[in-house]
Amino acid sequence: MSTEAPVSVRQKTIEETLTANVQASFANCADPRLKQLMQSLVTHLHAFVREVRLTEAEWNKAIEFLTAVGHITDDRRQEFILLSDVLGVSMQTINVNNEAVGEATEATVFGPFFVNDAPEIPNGGDIAGAAPGQPCWIEGTITDTYGNPVPRARIEVWEADEDGFYDVQYADGRVSGRGHLLADEEGRYSFWGLTPTPYPIPHDGPVGSMLEATGRSPMRASHLHFMVSAQGLRTLVTHIFVAGDELLKYDTVFGVKQSLIKDFVEQSPGTPTPDGRDLGHTTWARTRFDIVLAPEDSQ
Amino acid sequence: MSTEAPVSVRQKTIEETLTANVQASFANCADPRLKQLMQSLVTHLHAFVREVRLTEAEWNKAIEFLTAVGHITDDRRQEFILLSDVLGVSMQTINVNNEAVGEATEATVFGPFFVNDAPEIPNGGDIAGAAPGQPCWIEGTITDTYGNPVPRARIEVWEADEDGFYDVQYADGRVSGRGHLLADEEGRYSFWGLTPTPYPIPHDGPVGSMLEATGRSPMRASHLHFMVSAQGLRTLVTHIFVAGDELLKYDTVFGVKQSLIKDFVEQSPGTPTPDGRDLGHTTWARTRFDIVLAPEDSQ
Repeated sequence: MSTEAPVSVRQKTIEETLTANVQASFANCADPRLKQLMQSLVTHLHAFVREVRLTEAEWNKAIEFLTAVGHITDDRRQEFILLSDVLGVSMQTINVNNEAVGEATEATVFGPFFVNDAPEIPNGGDIAGAAPGQPCWIEGTITDTYGNPVPRARIEVWEADEDGFYDVQYADGRVSGRGHLLADEEGRYSFWGLTPTPYPIPHDGPVGSMLEATGRSPMRASHLHFMVSAQGLRTLVTHIFVAGDELLKYDTVFGVKQSLIKDFVEQSPGTPTPDGRDLGHTTWARTRFDIVLAPEDSQ
Repeated sequence: MSTEAPVSVRQKTIEETLTANVQASFANCADPRLKQLMQSLVTHLHAFVREVRLTEAEWNKAIEFLTAVGHITDDRRQEFILLSDVLGVSMQTINVNNEAVGEATEATVFGPFFVNDAPEIPNGGDIAGAAPGQPCWIEGTITDTYGNPVPRARIEVWEADEDGFYDVQYADGRVSGRGHLLADEEGRYSFWGLTPTPYPIPHDGPVGSMLEATGRSPMRASHLHFMVSAQGLRTLVTHIFVAGDELLKYDTVFGVKQSLIKDFVEQSPGTPTPDGRDLGHTTWARTRFDIVLAPEDSQ
């Protein structure tokens, strides 16, 4: 796409002069970073308006849309974050703040469902609680980019149940499908969770209407959230995704990265579990996620 | 400013791939114009995030800011329009929808204070009503770009009083400082209004806070609004500004165009008025605004 509109030289000058004037209006901004942000934002917003030759009716629609996004947003629902997510702006922000370093595990979107102070479980314990779903054994190692194990790294994990709900979406306030644990002295970790299943983002608001109008799905690919931190290393916020999930190509917040897709291998009822747990006559799954943390100063 | 961030080839590929994936997500949009708008918007938003290397803390601030803009917006206050105005996005939209044509009078921002069905006054009448301010005689002609007069063109005019308030901002609901009239058979018009004075846009909300944080003034240059329409010609929405106003350089919504700055010539008390009106011992002013309307299909 060209950023130059097919207009006369005189018209082009009028449009470029305006953009320059708006940039100049920030000349006295005392904070150099804020000045840079505003000037760059103005440049790109104006380039958009000029490139598409935005009509006044379309501008009005945009104002109405943003107003609706603002009005549905409250303490429990953040439609602006949702909007940023479905435009890939959240994921692009994650990208620029987690630049690729050697074999370091890639980051992805944080999402709205993390909770501080999730219960601690022992290494090898169970985060599922009473959440319904297929039991899943997750194990792996935590190393740095030199291959050294990271002992006692802190691992936060959280996920939706098989109906697509996180515990914070339950009416009864119970905690399940989340917890934290520490890697052992060799950087190894394991826990029981649930095999991830797909779910839609909230799509009964203006962002959902936009997705529908543009022929997009509100579904997220099945995933399990991780946040891994250790002293001297860059905190990693990421997911793992389920190989074979047909939504991998359409994840509506663009969180999927090839390196984060894992085989979740289904086990027949009665297959011995890694820790001897008796699951009776149910199927279960297992997967492996070896995590590599980047140096702290690698941004 | 470059749109390329100083990052590794691998990192650049990650960022470009994301933008391409988000664009591709709109591939099934049934409305080709909506598809174009969304794909262009995504391209420019991502370019902004990448160019400034937006931090996650800054992204959070942006979400908080937009939320505050949404929450202060209601039926009477439109903070998103204000935001669009102070970023020059409104003015750029006006520019692209009113491309320069020959000697046609330039357009500028519409603003939030127009009211439909303002009272009709005769040509030569008074729109000021009870609004306080210095009386001002405004006269001119309406022609097309070939120099032909435009008989019976409809002229809407509206302006703030000398305290900087439009009638819709009064508590008592009275109508003043606005009206409409028709040009005569030779395309001539004249009316009494008020000499325009400067005023601030509403700056007690998040947009005002942004202006303050960036060292910008909330003031608009003194101006008087016009909307002129006639069959077969492009409707003109514009202002005239007052020569010598020191705010001309800083108009916070970027509405000023050189061609719209007019001499408002102050007259001593007792100077005979054009229509013989007796203004007693008050000063008054007069100005001339000859208006040229573009062809309707010139967009």
